[in-house]
Amino acid sequence: MTRRLSDVSAPARLASPGEGLGADELALAARNHGLPLEAMRYDLTPPGLHYVLTHYDIPHLPDDPDRRLTVNGRVRRPLSLSLEELRAHPCVTTRVTMECAGNGRALLTPRPVSQPWLVEAVGTAEWTGVPLRLLLTEAGVEPDAVDVVFTGADHGVERGVEQDYQRGLPLHVALGEEPEVLVAHAMNGAPLPPQHGSPLRLVVPGWYGMAHVKWLREITVVDTAFTGFQQSVAYRLRQVPEEEGEPVTRIAPRALLIPPGFPDFMSRTRVVSAGPVTLEGRAWSGRAPVTSVEVSTDDGLTWRSAVLEPGRGHRWAWRRWSFTWPAAPGDHVLSVRAHDGVGNSQPLQQPWNRGGFANNLVQRVPVFCPDPADMT
Amino acid sequence: MTRRLSDVSAPARLASPGEGLGADELALAARNHGLPLEAMRYDLTPPGLHYVLTHYDIPHLPDDPDRRLTVNGRVRRPLSLSLEELRAHPCVTTRVTMECAGNGRALLTPRPVSQPWLVEAVGTAEWTGVPLRLLLTEAGVEPDAVDVVFTGADHGVERGVEQDYQRGLPLHVALGEEPEVLVAHAMNGAPLPPQHGSPLRLVVPGWYGMAHVKWLREITVVDTAFTGFQQSVAYRLRQVPEEEGEPVTRIAPRALLIPPGFPDFMSRTRVVSAGPVTLEGRAWSGRAPVTSVEVSTDDGLTWRSAVLEPGRGHRWAWRRWSFTWPAAPGDHVLSVRAHDGVGNSQPLQQPWNRGGFANNLVQRVPVFCPDPADMT
Repeated sequence: MTRRLSDVSAPARLASPGEGLGADELALAARNHGLPLEAMRYDLTPPGLHYVLTHYDIPHLPDDPDRRLTVNGRVRRPLSLSLEELRAHPCVTTRVTMECAGNGRALLTPRPVSQPWLVEAVGTAEWTGVPLRLLLTEAGVEPDAVDVVFTGADHGVERGVEQDYQRGLPLHVALGEEPEVLVAHAMNGAPLPPQHGSPLRLVVPGWYGMAHVKWLREITVVDTAFTGFQQSVAYRLRQVPEEEGEPVTRIAPRALLIPPGFPDFMSRTRVVSAGPVTLEGRAWSGRAPVTSVEVSTDDGLTWRSAVLEPGRGHRWAWRRWSFTWPAAPGDHVLSVRAHDGVGNSQPLQQPWNRGGFANNLVQRVPVFCPDPADMT
Repeated sequence: MTRRLSDVSAPARLASPGEGLGADELALAARNHGLPLEAMRYDLTPPGLHYVLTHYDIPHLPDDPDRRLTVNGRVRRPLSLSLEELRAHPCVTTRVTMECAGNGRALLTPRPVSQPWLVEAVGTAEWTGVPLRLLLTEAGVEPDAVDVVFTGADHGVERGVEQDYQRGLPLHVALGEEPEVLVAHAMNGAPLPPQHGSPLRLVVPGWYGMAHVKWLREITVVDTAFTGFQQSVAYRLRQVPEEEGEPVTRIAPRALLIPPGFPDFMSRTRVVSAGPVTLEGRAWSGRAPVTSVEVSTDDGLTWRSAVLEPGRGHRWAWRRWSFTWPAAPGDHVLSVRAHDGVGNSQPLQQPWNRGGFANNLVQRVPVFCPDPADMT
């Protein structure tokens, strides 16, 4: 019997109890990558350390004066802009902490089978681009507009559906100023690297990564709610497959700590010396500014306040926090949790949904502090 | 009972039959990363796409005029050089394809439990630095010198042994011109990124990655063979743990192809349209120049010659190859293999050792070509 496309592209599934990571998950883990947590020491993540997730292949879009970004659909004056024409528009630069919606997925029980992130799918960059609302105003949005659809140049098949990667935003978000959505052409002052969407990507500060469409080639204003695969099938919060589910949107609060001391190569267990240890890390929320950060050094039993540094005007970027821990010999589990200004905080019990999305369970970092008498 | 350092740092082991990837392997896969294979289209791997493996944490070594690279041990005039003083020496720039010694490990049966690479632990960069032999000549190597030991600033524990990462080279290799070993301070014309060894790393063209010591801080000439952990315990070719084993040194030949068509997100199965498909990729060997590349489109049953592009003077860099494949509807497995000038080639049966090192088994890329009559 002849095979069809749907035969090589399976439905989503959950791992069985005790099922180790499969070859498919490893293939994703080997090509995508997280932020090594010690790189949280940098306000801006150095090139190559920012998390990367690409659904399909990284498209190759070399400099080409004929390449156009189009703005079309329910607009009075469709636009077709070369990269040079786009860059000639007024630009802004915004510091943004971006996080994958699937961050934390591989720690869930049962584990949704997909890109197996632990907690490191995050990074912070300064994105320079043209505010989307300027482009939409230039094009003249028709009064019946509902959503704005963004199409990337990346092409693949997912659960049987062949597609260019597409996501939509409600019109009021696309035109909004809090956050201000950008069509970005630079990352940390340089042209976008291939894996971050060269030459153009959408940046939606405060939203999970799936909204920041890379390799952006078309912006379409539509008069009905967008129901493409990445909007209505993927990136929904569901307990059972039949549910319509809630859409994944803004980033839930999260704090992470830089694992202190030094690691064992294989187990990644941390080893610290007895005495005062400065714990530090970052905290962020796409829903409201982070208002406080707490640290636990006894596996979540008790919590104490960390020192949270001011945001310095970077509303959409992570903030540094620190805490001095008097490490005593023995085994410890360190955790940290963030609270934001509208009452969101991080749960101690896993929030679970079938996609493993928007999971902000507190981080657990096992640390071993040897008895000085045992050290040679 | 009090735990000791060796309790959190286990011996090497092999995965049981059918054992999926564990949390420890995933923790390594999430922080290290390979080259997305489509990035082989670039002669020089763009920043952030070159493979990265760090044993421990990435050290933070900010600019500091007091930081020194020392050259000491069995030398007549020990050196202590600031970065600026090092840069004032004569420099060369060499294009180097670097590959992790553990590339391919996760495909082995049984699977050595360690960083779980598939085939993508590779990348090509131009490294600028001072030839090591100039520094050794400046320091004046004593006649009883045997090995040169390189110490990085990265610190951790591995199989119970706390250590700074250290590797040695025989004196004749350290002083050699084929390859010419570099103390590199620039990668692709820019200062080294943190994850590639900032501010200094060793580059040993043609050798597997473990020799290219990152965060290099000390060079020590010794009068006995170096027997540090990464020389005598790790990075040896062994069938059983008791064996002394052969050292891992130069890169065995390998060719890889860019998976054609487009992928399924989860299975990574490739989908191509029927008709002529240009297959392309790269081939390299650290042992001798690559002399030919062959392609199989029937899972290794038959092989035909690919077109191999000239090396253009870059002896230590990969070379592009291409092949036109008339894709017919159905399922196919594509493979490619390289042969080098001293008779090495890639095996069709897995070469196995307990560390999963220097494994250059041919790549297998399953491809599905739908029947045009089935396409909507």
